[in-house]
Amino acid sequence: MKKFEEKTIRSKQIYKGHVVHLQVDDVSLPNGKEAKREIIKHPGAVAVIPITKENKIVLVEQYRKPLEKSILEIPAGKLEPGEEPETTAIRELEEETGYTTDELSFVTSFYSSPGFADELMHIYITNQLQPLEEKVAGDEDEFIEIVELTLEEAKQYVEKERIHDAKTNYAILYLHALGLS
Amino acid sequence: MKKFEEKTIRSKQIYKGHVVHLQVDDVSLPNGKEAKREIIKHPGAVAVIPITKENKIVLVEQYRKPLEKSILEIPAGKLEPGEEPETTAIRELEEETGYTTDELSFVTSFYSSPGFADELMHIYITNQLQPLEEKVAGDEDEFIEIVELTLEEAKQYVEKERIHDAKTNYAILYLHALGLS
Repeated sequence: MKKFEEKTIRSKQIYKGHVVHLQVDDVSLPNGKEAKREIIKHPGAVAVIPITKENKIVLVEQYRKPLEKSILEIPAGKLEPGEEPETTAIRELEEETGYTTDELSFVTSFYSSPGFADELMHIYITNQLQPLEEKVAGDEDEFIEIVELTLEEAKQYVEKERIHDAKTNYAILYLHALGLS
Repeated sequence: MKKFEEKTIRSKQIYKGHVVHLQVDDVSLPNGKEAKREIIKHPGAVAVIPITKENKIVLVEQYRKPLEKSILEIPAGKLEPGEEPETTAIRELEEETGYTTDELSFVTSFYSSPGFADELMHIYITNQLQPLEEKVAGDEDEFIEIVELTLEEAKQYVEKERIHDAKTNYAILYLHALGLS
Protein backbone atom coordinates (compact mmCIF):
# COMPACT_ATOMS: atom_id res chain seq x y z
CA MET A 1 0.00 0.00 0.00
CA LYS A 2 1.29 3.41 -1.02
CA LYS A 3 -1.35 5.56 0.70
CA PHE A 4 0.06 8.98 1.66
CA GLU A 5 3.23 8.11 -0.25
CA GLU A 6 6.26 10.28 0.44
CA LYS A 7 8.27 10.58 -2.78
CA THR A 8 12.03 10.90 -2.53
CA ILE A 9 13.41 14.18 -3.85
CA ARG A 10 16.99 13.74 -2.64
CA SER A 11 18.70 11.03 -0.60
CA LYS A 12 21.97 11.64 1.21
CA GLN A 13 24.04 8.90 2.78
CA ILE A 14 25.44 10.15 6.08
CA TYR A 15 27.15 7.01 7.38
CA LYS A 16 27.94 3.55 6.12
CA GLY A 17 28.63 1.27 9.06
CA HIS A 18 29.19 -2.36 9.89
CA VAL A 19 25.65 -2.92 11.22
CA VAL A 20 23.66 0.14 10.12
CA HIS A 21 23.73 2.81 7.47
CA LEU A 22 22.17 6.22 7.99
CA GLN A 23 20.63 8.27 5.21
CA VAL A 24 18.57 11.43 5.24
CA ASP A 25 15.92 11.77 2.54
CA ASP A 26 14.11 14.93 1.47
CA VAL A 27 10.59 13.83 0.61
CA SER A 28 7.55 15.45 -0.92
CA LEU A 29 4.44 15.04 1.23
CA PRO A 30 0.88 14.44 -0.01
CA ASN A 31 0.19 18.19 0.41
CA GLY A 32 3.18 19.10 -1.78
CA LYS A 33 5.34 20.31 1.11
CA GLU A 34 8.80 18.94 1.81
CA ALA A 35 10.06 17.13 4.89
CA LYS A 36 13.21 15.34 6.01
CA ARG A 37 13.27 11.65 6.94
CA GLU A 38 16.15 10.14 8.90
CA ILE A 39 16.41 6.49 7.88
CA ILE A 40 18.46 3.68 9.38
CA LYS A 41 19.14 0.90 6.87
CA HIS A 42 19.62 -2.52 8.44
CA PRO A 43 19.94 -5.93 6.73
CA GLY A 44 17.14 -7.47 8.81
CA ALA A 45 17.34 -10.01 11.59
CA VAL A 46 16.13 -13.46 12.55
CA ALA A 47 15.30 -14.84 16.00
CA VAL A 48 14.42 -18.32 17.22
CA ILE A 49 12.31 -19.37 20.21
CA PRO A 50 14.09 -22.58 21.28
CA ILE A 51 12.09 -24.87 23.58
CA THR A 52 13.80 -27.83 25.25
CA LYS A 53 12.29 -31.27 25.90
CA GLU A 54 11.66 -30.06 29.47
CA ASN A 55 9.62 -27.11 28.08
CA LYS A 56 12.29 -24.60 29.00
CA ILE A 57 13.08 -21.55 26.90
CA VAL A 58 16.71 -21.18 25.88
CA LEU A 59 17.81 -17.57 26.31
CA VAL A 60 21.07 -15.78 25.75
CA GLU A 61 22.43 -13.16 28.13
CA GLN A 62 24.55 -10.48 26.52
CA TYR A 63 25.67 -6.93 27.09
CA ARG A 64 23.88 -4.40 24.92
CA LYS A 65 26.00 -1.29 24.59
CA PRO A 66 23.11 1.00 23.51
CA LEU A 67 21.30 0.14 26.80
CA GLU A 68 24.47 -0.06 28.94
CA LYS A 69 23.15 -3.24 30.50
CA SER A 70 22.96 -6.96 29.83
CA ILE A 71 19.60 -8.53 29.08
CA LEU A 72 18.28 -12.01 28.28
CA GLU A 73 17.08 -12.51 24.72
CA ILE A 74 16.04 -15.31 22.45
CA PRO A 75 18.94 -16.15 20.11
CA ALA A 76 19.05 -13.87 17.08
CA GLY A 77 21.33 -12.42 14.48
CA LYS A 78 21.56 -10.37 11.34
CA LEU A 79 20.67 -11.70 7.91
CA GLU A 80 23.63 -12.02 5.57
CA PRO A 81 23.04 -10.66 2.05
CA GLY A 82 20.83 -13.01 0.04
CA GLU A 83 20.43 -15.44 2.92
CA GLU A 84 17.15 -17.21 3.66
CA PRO A 85 15.85 -16.39 7.17
CA GLU A 86 15.74 -20.11 8.09
CA THR A 87 19.48 -20.39 7.38
CA THR A 88 20.23 -17.42 9.65
CA ALA A 89 17.95 -18.90 12.30
CA ILE A 90 19.81 -22.20 12.42
CA ARG A 91 23.24 -20.56 12.29
CA GLU A 92 22.45 -18.25 15.19
CA LEU A 93 20.84 -21.06 17.18
CA GLU A 94 23.98 -23.17 16.74
CA GLU A 95 26.47 -20.39 17.44
CA GLU A 96 24.69 -18.93 20.43
CA THR A 97 23.15 -21.93 22.19
CA GLY A 98 25.03 -25.06 21.10
CA TYR A 99 21.77 -26.63 19.92
CA THR A 100 20.67 -27.27 16.37
CA THR A 101 17.38 -28.26 14.78
CA ASP A 102 15.93 -29.43 11.49
CA GLU A 103 12.44 -28.27 12.30
CA LEU A 104 11.54 -24.58 12.44
CA SER A 105 8.05 -23.10 12.40
CA PHE A 106 7.45 -19.52 11.36
CA VAL A 107 5.83 -17.40 14.09
CA THR A 108 5.67 -13.85 12.76
CA SER A 109 7.71 -11.03 11.30
CA PHE A 110 7.64 -7.36 12.17
CA TYR A 111 9.50 -4.11 11.60
CA SER A 112 11.26 -3.22 14.84
CA SER A 113 10.88 0.53 14.58
CA PRO A 114 9.17 1.60 11.36
CA GLY A 115 9.40 5.33 12.12
CA PHE A 116 13.13 5.48 11.53
CA ALA A 117 14.48 2.03 10.58
CA ASP A 118 13.85 -0.63 7.93
CA GLU A 119 14.95 -3.55 10.14
CA LEU A 120 12.58 -6.48 9.62
CA MET A 121 12.66 -9.14 12.35
CA HIS A 122 11.64 -12.73 11.47
CA ILE A 123 10.73 -15.03 14.37
CA TYR A 124 10.71 -18.84 14.32
CA ILE A 125 10.05 -21.46 16.99
CA THR A 126 11.31 -25.00 17.51
CA ASN A 127 10.83 -27.62 20.17
CA GLN A 128 13.05 -30.10 18.31
CA LEU A 129 16.49 -29.29 19.68
CA GLN A 130 19.54 -31.50 19.33
CA PRO A 131 22.72 -30.63 21.22
CA LEU A 132 25.66 -30.12 18.86
CA GLU A 133 28.51 -32.55 19.36
CA GLU A 134 31.05 -29.86 18.71
CA LYS A 135 30.49 -26.21 19.55
CA VAL A 136 30.35 -23.84 16.58
CA ALA A 137 32.42 -20.67 16.86
CA GLY A 138 30.34 -17.50 16.83
CA ASP A 139 31.36 -13.88 16.43
CA GLU A 140 34.70 -13.39 18.08
CA ASP A 141 33.63 -10.22 19.92
CA GLU A 142 30.37 -11.70 21.23
CA PHE A 143 30.31 -12.65 24.91
CA ILE A 144 27.22 -14.59 25.86
CA GLU A 145 25.84 -16.94 28.48
CA ILE A 146 23.01 -19.39 28.00
CA VAL A 147 20.12 -19.46 30.47
CA GLU A 148 17.21 -21.93 30.35
CA LEU A 149 14.00 -20.75 31.99
CA THR A 150 10.49 -22.06 32.51
CA LEU A 151 7.74 -19.83 31.16
CA GLU A 152 6.87 -18.75 34.71
CA GLU A 153 10.47 -17.76 35.38
CA ALA A 154 10.63 -15.91 32.07
CA LYS A 155 7.51 -13.92 32.98
CA GLN A 156 9.20 -12.85 36.22
CA TYR A 157 12.24 -11.78 34.18
CA VAL A 158 9.93 -9.64 32.04
CA GLU A 159 8.53 -8.05 35.24
CA LYS A 160 12.06 -7.30 36.45
CA GLU A 161 13.04 -5.95 33.00
CA ARG A 162 15.86 -8.49 32.69
CA ILE A 163 13.97 -9.61 29.59
CA HIS A 164 13.26 -6.29 27.93
CA ASP A 165 13.27 -6.31 24.14
CA ALA A 166 10.62 -6.51 21.45
CA LYS A 167 11.32 -9.97 20.03
CA THR A 168 11.77 -11.64 23.45
CA ASN A 169 8.77 -9.94 25.09
CA TYR A 170 6.77 -11.06 22.04
CA ALA A 171 8.13 -14.61 22.41
CA ILE A 172 7.14 -14.86 26.08
CA LEU A 173 3.63 -13.56 25.34
CA TYR A 174 3.40 -16.02 22.41
CA LEU A 175 4.32 -18.97 24.65
CA HIS A 176 1.81 -17.76 27.25
CA ALA A 177 -0.93 -17.61 24.58
CA LEU A 178 0.13 -21.06 23.39
CA GLY A 179 -0.27 -22.42 26.91
CA LEU A 180 3.31 -23.71 27.38
CA SER A 181 3.74 -25.16 30.83
CA MET B 1 23.13 -6.08 35.24
CA LYS B 2 26.58 -5.27 33.91
CA LYS B 3 27.68 -8.81 32.98
CA PHE B 4 30.14 -8.77 30.06
CA GLU B 5 30.25 -4.98 30.31
CA GLU B 6 31.76 -3.12 27.36
CA LYS B 7 33.54 -0.04 28.66
CA THR B 8 33.63 3.05 26.47
CA ILE B 9 37.10 4.10 25.36
CA ARG B 10 36.03 6.78 22.87
CA SER B 11 32.64 7.99 21.68
CA LYS B 12 32.21 9.91 18.45
CA GLN B 13 29.00 11.64 17.45
CA ILE B 14 28.43 11.13 13.73
CA TYR B 15 25.03 12.76 13.27
CA LYS B 16 22.60 14.77 15.36
CA GLY B 17 19.17 14.60 13.81
CA HIS B 18 15.58 15.54 14.51
CA VAL B 19 14.52 12.01 15.48
CA VAL B 20 17.76 10.07 15.96
CA HIS B 21 21.40 10.69 16.74
CA LEU B 22 24.15 8.33 15.63
CA GLN B 23 27.33 7.74 17.58
CA VAL B 24 30.12 5.23 17.18
CA ASP B 25 31.79 4.02 20.36
CA ASP B 26 35.10 2.22 20.69
CA VAL B 27 34.65 -0.24 23.54
CA SER B 28 36.88 -2.58 25.47
CA LEU B 29 35.54 -6.13 25.57
CA PRO B 30 35.70 -8.55 28.51
CA ASN B 31 38.76 -10.18 26.87
CA GLY B 32 40.56 -6.84 26.66
CA LYS B 33 40.17 -6.49 22.90
CA GLU B 34 38.55 -3.47 21.28
CA ALA B 35 35.45 -3.30 19.13
CA LYS B 36 33.25 -0.64 17.52
CA ARG B 37 29.59 -0.19 18.41
CA GLU B 38 27.23 1.81 16.19
CA ILE B 39 24.56 3.30 18.41
CA ILE B 40 21.33 5.07 17.52
CA LYS B 41 20.12 7.37 20.28
CA HIS B 42 16.36 7.88 20.36
CA PRO B 43 14.23 9.67 22.99
CA GLY B 44 11.93 6.66 23.48
CA ALA B 45 8.34 6.21 22.40
CA VAL B 46 4.90 5.49 23.78
CA ALA B 47 2.02 3.58 22.20
CA VAL B 48 -1.59 3.06 23.24
CA ILE B 49 -3.92 0.15 22.48
CA PRO B 50 -7.29 1.95 22.20
CA ILE B 51 -10.37 -0.29 22.46
CA THR B 52 -13.80 1.14 21.65
CA LYS B 53 -17.10 0.30 23.42
CA GLU B 54 -17.77 -2.08 20.51
CA ASN B 55 -14.48 -3.89 21.27
CA LYS B 56 -12.81 -2.54 18.16
CA ILE B 57 -9.14 -1.62 18.02
CA VAL B 58 -8.40 1.89 16.84
CA LEU B 59 -5.48 1.86 14.41
CA VAL B 60 -3.74 4.55 12.44
CA GLU B 61 -2.66 4.10 8.83
CA GLN B 62 0.43 6.05 7.82
CA TYR B 63 3.21 5.97 5.29
CA ARG B 64 6.53 4.80 6.69
CA LYS B 65 9.36 6.08 4.54
CA PRO B 66 11.92 3.52 5.77
CA LEU B 67 9.61 0.71 4.56
CA GLU B 68 8.31 2.56 1.47
CA LYS B 69 4.81 1.44 2.34
CA SER B 70 1.90 2.42 4.57
CA ILE B 71 0.98 0.16 7.48
CA LEU B 72 -1.62 0.15 10.24
CA GLU B 73 -0.28 0.78 13.73
CA ILE B 74 -1.58 1.49 17.18
CA PRO B 75 -1.22 5.24 17.88
CA ALA B 76 2.25 6.15 19.12
CA GLY B 77 4.73 8.95 19.33
CA LYS B 78 8.07 10.07 20.66
CA LEU B 79 8.61 11.09 24.27
CA GLU B 80 9.41 14.76 24.73
CA PRO B 81 12.34 15.50 27.07
CA GLY B 82 11.34 14.99 30.70
CA GLU B 83 7.81 13.90 29.78
CA GLU B 84 5.97 11.13 31.63
CA PRO B 85 5.01 8.28 29.25
CA GLU B 86 1.32 8.62 30.25
CA THR B 87 1.35 12.24 29.07
CA THR B 88 2.80 11.23 25.70
CA ALA B 89 0.25 8.41 25.46
CA ILE B 90 -2.72 10.74 25.91
CA ARG B 91 -1.32 13.41 23.58
CA GLU B 92 -0.71 10.93 20.78
CA LEU B 93 -4.10 9.28 21.30
CA GLU B 94 -5.79 12.68 21.03
CA GLU B 95 -3.77 13.92 18.05
CA GLU B 96 -3.93 10.72 16.04
CA THR B 97 -7.38 9.29 16.79
CA GLY B 98 -9.61 12.11 18.05
CA TYR B 99 -10.31 10.14 21.22
CA THR B 100 -9.10 10.89 24.72
CA THR B 101 -9.09 8.92 27.97
CA ASP B 102 -8.49 9.37 31.66
CA GLU B 103 -7.79 5.70 32.24
CA LEU B 104 -4.63 4.04 30.99
CA SER B 105 -3.23 0.68 32.09
CA PHE B 106 0.40 -0.19 31.60
CA VAL B 107 0.94 -3.27 29.41
CA THR B 108 4.70 -3.60 28.95
CA SER B 109 7.82 -1.84 27.81
CA PHE B 110 10.60 -3.09 25.57
CA TYR B 111 13.65 -1.97 23.66
CA SER B 112 12.79 -2.04 19.96
CA SER B 113 16.19 -3.10 18.70
CA PRO B 114 18.76 -3.43 21.51
CA GLY B 115 21.61 -4.40 19.20
CA PHE B 116 21.96 -0.91 17.73
CA ALA B 117 19.39 1.45 19.29
CA ASP B 118 18.39 2.65 22.76
CA GLU B 119 14.74 3.30 21.84
CA LEU B 120 12.49 2.13 24.67
CA MET B 121 8.83 1.59 23.75
CA HIS B 122 6.16 1.90 26.48
CA ILE B 123 2.77 0.35 25.75
CA TYR B 124 -0.54 1.20 27.45
CA ILE B 125 -4.12 0.06 26.92
CA THR B 126 -7.47 1.72 27.46
CA ASN B 127 -11.06 0.72 26.83
CA GLN B 128 -12.34 4.02 28.24
CA LEU B 129 -12.38 6.25 25.17
CA GLN B 130 -14.20 9.55 24.91
CA PRO B 131 -14.46 11.30 21.53
CA LEU B 132 -12.91 14.78 21.65
CA GLU B 133 -15.36 17.58 20.94
CA GLU B 134 -12.75 19.47 19.00
CA LYS B 135 -9.98 17.80 17.03
CA VAL B 136 -6.45 18.44 18.28
CA ALA B 137 -3.87 19.40 15.67
CA GLY B 138 -1.04 16.91 15.34
CA ASP B 139 2.29 17.14 13.55
CA GLU B 140 1.84 19.22 10.44
CA ASP B 141 3.71 16.76 8.22
CA GLU B 142 1.83 13.69 9.48
CA PHE B 143 -0.80 12.25 7.14
CA ILE B 144 -2.87 9.57 8.80
CA GLU B 145 -6.18 7.77 8.53
CA ILE B 146 -8.02 6.05 11.36
CA VAL B 147 -9.23 2.47 10.96
CA GLU B 148 -11.25 0.56 13.55
CA LEU B 149 -10.95 -3.24 13.38
CA THR B 150 -12.28 -6.22 15.28
CA LEU B 151 -9.62 -8.52 16.67
CA GLU B 152 -10.40 -11.08 13.95
CA GLU B 153 -9.95 -8.45 11.25
CA ALA B 154 -6.71 -7.28 12.85
CA LYS B 155 -5.36 -10.86 12.83
CA GLN B 156 -6.07 -11.03 9.10
CA TYR B 157 -4.19 -7.74 8.66
CA VAL B 158 -1.21 -9.30 10.48
CA GLU B 159 -1.38 -12.26 8.06
CA LYS B 160 -1.41 -9.89 5.10
CA GLU B 161 1.45 -7.82 6.62
CA ARG B 162 -0.67 -4.66 6.56
CA ILE B 163 -0.08 -4.71 10.33
CA HIS B 164 3.65 -5.34 10.48
CA ASP B 165 5.49 -3.66 13.33
CA ALA B 166 6.70 -4.77 16.75
CA LYS B 167 4.35 -2.75 18.98
CA THR B 168 1.22 -3.48 16.91
CA ASN B 169 1.94 -7.20 16.40
CA TYR B 170 2.53 -7.34 20.18
CA ALA B 171 -0.77 -5.53 20.80
CA ILE B 172 -2.77 -7.93 18.62
CA LEU B 173 -1.21 -10.95 20.34
CA TYR B 174 -1.90 -9.34 23.74
CA LEU B 175 -5.58 -8.85 22.89
CA HIS B 176 -5.75 -12.45 21.64
CA ALA B 177 -4.26 -13.69 24.93
CA LEU B 178 -6.70 -11.46 26.82
CA GLY B 179 -9.61 -13.05 24.94
CA LEU B 180 -11.03 -9.85 23.40
CA SER B 181 -13.99 -10.65 21.20
